[in-house]
Amino acid sequence: MTVQQQALAARGAAQTLATATRSRKDAALHAMADALAKAETAVLEANATDVRRAEEAGTSAAIVDRLRLTPDRVGAMVDGLRDVAGLPDPVGDVVRGWTNANGVQVRQVRVPFGVVGIVYEARPNVTADAAGLCLKSGNAVLLRGSSSAAASNAAVVDALRLGLADVGLPVDAVQLVPGPREVTDELMGARGLVDVLIPRGGAGLIDHVVRHSVVPVIETGVGNCHLYVDASADPEMALAILLNAKTQRPSVCNAVETLLVHADAAPRFLPTALEALARAGVTVHGDARTAAYGPDVRAVTQEDWETEYLSLDLAIGVVDSLDDALAHIATYSTGHSETIVTDSEAAAQRFTAEIDAAAVLVNASSRFVDGSEFGFGAEIGISTQKLHARGPMGLPEMTSTKYVVTGSGQTR
Amino acid sequence: MTVQQQALAARGAAQTLATATRSRKDAALHAMADALAKAETAVLEANATDVRRAEEAGTSAAIVDRLRLTPDRVGAMVDGLRDVAGLPDPVGDVVRGWTNANGVQVRQVRVPFGVVGIVYEARPNVTADAAGLCLKSGNAVLLRGSSSAAASNAAVVDALRLGLADVGLPVDAVQLVPGPREVTDELMGARGLVDVLIPRGGAGLIDHVVRHSVVPVIETGVGNCHLYVDASADPEMALAILLNAKTQRPSVCNAVETLLVHADAAPRFLPTALEALARAGVTVHGDARTAAYGPDVRAVTQEDWETEYLSLDLAIGVVDSLDDALAHIATYSTGHSETIVTDSEAAAQRFTAEIDAAAVLVNASSRFVDGSEFGFGAEIGISTQKLHARGPMGLPEMTSTKYVVTGSGQTR
Repeated sequence: MTVQQQALAARGAAQTLATATRSRKDAALHAMADALAKAETAVLEANATDVRRAEEAGTSAAIVDRLRLTPDRVGAMVDGLRDVAGLPDPVGDVVRGWTNANGVQVRQVRVPFGVVGIVYEARPNVTADAAGLCLKSGNAVLLRGSSSAAASNAAVVDALRLGLADVGLPVDAVQLVPGPREVTDELMGARGLVDVLIPRGGAGLIDHVVRHSVVPVIETGVGNCHLYVDASADPEMALAILLNAKTQRPSVCNAVETLLVHADAAPRFLPTALEALARAGVTVHGDARTAAYGPDVRAVTQEDWETEYLSLDLAIGVVDSLDDALAHIATYSTGHSETIVTDSEAAAQRFTAEIDAAAVLVNASSRFVDGSEFGFGAEIGISTQKLHARGPMGLPEMTSTKYVVTGSGQTR
Repeated sequence: MTVQQQALAARGAAQTLATATRSRKDAALHAMADALAKAETAVLEANATDVRRAEEAGTSAAIVDRLRLTPDRVGAMVDGLRDVAGLPDPVGDVVRGWTNANGVQVRQVRVPFGVVGIVYEARPNVTADAAGLCLKSGNAVLLRGSSSAAASNAAVVDALRLGLADVGLPVDAVQLVPGPREVTDELMGARGLVDVLIPRGGAGLIDHVVRHSVVPVIETGVGNCHLYVDASADPEMALAILLNAKTQRPSVCNAVETLLVHADAAPRFLPTALEALARAGVTVHGDARTAAYGPDVRAVTQEDWETEYLSLDLAIGVVDSLDDALAHIATYSTGHSETIVTDSEAAAQRFTAEIDAAAVLVNASSRFVDGSEFGFGAEIGISTQKLHARGPMGLPEMTSTKYVVTGSGQTR
């Protein structure tokens, strides 16, 4: 099947999903979970093939780790599907509504997008997670995974489609899009058939999709996040937030990559901070003023300021003012999550007003910028664009709206 | 100045606008209105040059009419700016907010996009209207008008910038982007500098921008709108709605272009309807079953079904069922506004649930799908895409959001 044929089949399935009741969709999610649990052995065997091939091809250990499934990871996928069944259905929500003077009633109602394309890298768990979120929000999904996870993804999708068939929903609501690289281009060109593309993965993948897709894109995830320790910051609070935001899970997009310290705070903050960072195994790339406060500070480069490390590395700079911090962040931020630690209400106000990012934090760890932490129950990604959705995206962000206008013969 | 330089200047201005208070922005809008009123003569002289050039170039009378400004039209632009000053400011609105169990407060707040690009055709009034809406929503605007309106647009923008200067806001918040065709390409490539592009004009312009822009686009306006007269429809109500939706203002995107009539309703509806349409000067392009009900029915072609006439033309087809009507609309709709006239609650339910469009109407004229009719006060266009905004776009649709997260040292 060509991508076009797959997309047409998805559109047909989407028509059914658009009017499926919540109980029917929830039954499907539980049936998909059951089928995936039953297919555990097949999924793990398929995954073993992918892992072996990746290792033979000399793939890095980090990527092989993302690719590898275990009974626990399959269990998490199964649980994830059941969790989504427990979430409220956004479809049919009335966002707002009013009655005009002439008696015409207007309601703005949430509706599914239709067909969603997910382009992602070698994380087979995304296959089940994205399929569950799309199904619950009434969308058919075209899953364009990495070829390195082809066997794993196929096994997972086979199971999910069995679940759909069990409850009588169209199996083409969940489809894997296999094939060579050109297939991604076809998907990006399928305007009118695919309603939205969501790339999930590294900066290179996201940039490629954003630049080449004719289908509307929701950009997710790249986070070159800054933590600014203001002159008035409580050093203990700043250190606790820094360590949490840098080391609790360094590989995620809401981890901090650059620390900026006001020159007035530096003498009482940086010596302790540098020690604590060293103990936590963090490699520090600092400017000359930072290096004055501790040993083991590598010279920071232009590239460091620009880098989303996703590792136990941290760039540090000392700045002379809030203005300098704002300017640095304006230059290097990817618009994900930016944090200030301060005791000054005026500084907090300026920071939150002037920083242009999906999330701006005052005296809290950027690790809170997350769908689960926000209480969304599930998350398809964190949008760093300004159109449609910005920040953590839950189920409502996977919908569009439609105006339903009801009258009794009114004309203009 | 290159487009890049203009966009950089706009970004600088946008930073100031983002934190400008409502009273400051409203003062600017009134100052812009004053300056434009004062510049009436200069604007009309510049416009006369554009009109003369267009006429010499053999431009069609319809386009010359759109291009032509009169004292009344300039007055309408001035009034429009003052009207926008009277509308609520969307910036700073808290869309939702909550406090997490750990005391972390999360608020989702409306913020401007930053820099908005408007690409439009030879309607100089768009220049002032779009500038006013962008300014009120805190956005800097790059106005890429048609070269045929270059002198008119320049005169209008000169006046608007004088108004901005009068209140001390950066004049680069409103800029005209002059130059040859390639300049539009540069604007469409200015990702990271321009936050969103909104094309306003015909289908060709919109399709070009949508397909070539790397900057996110909000698609507006093409409306191949259908009116379906169900078996159970009240013929008088159906006729009133049809005449209103077709003839009250045929050149707009929410006018009806195709009428579908259930076979059971056709004998009691079509003879009268065809007479009334003829009296109203409407040219009917009908299928064979329609032609049976009246004289002067031209044979409908595939192209007719696909056409947004924007004129006193109407395609008519007789269908055997609601299913056939839904299928026809699914094939030819541009997703703008689709109407059913029916006395059947079940038919109304199915129509509103299954039609995939920005607006779905029951027993009301599609002419109501409009920012003013919806009470938005002003409208930048009607979005026919599913991302971000769908349907009439008012000031809130010209904003993004930002999460402001406030704590007292919380970590995960």
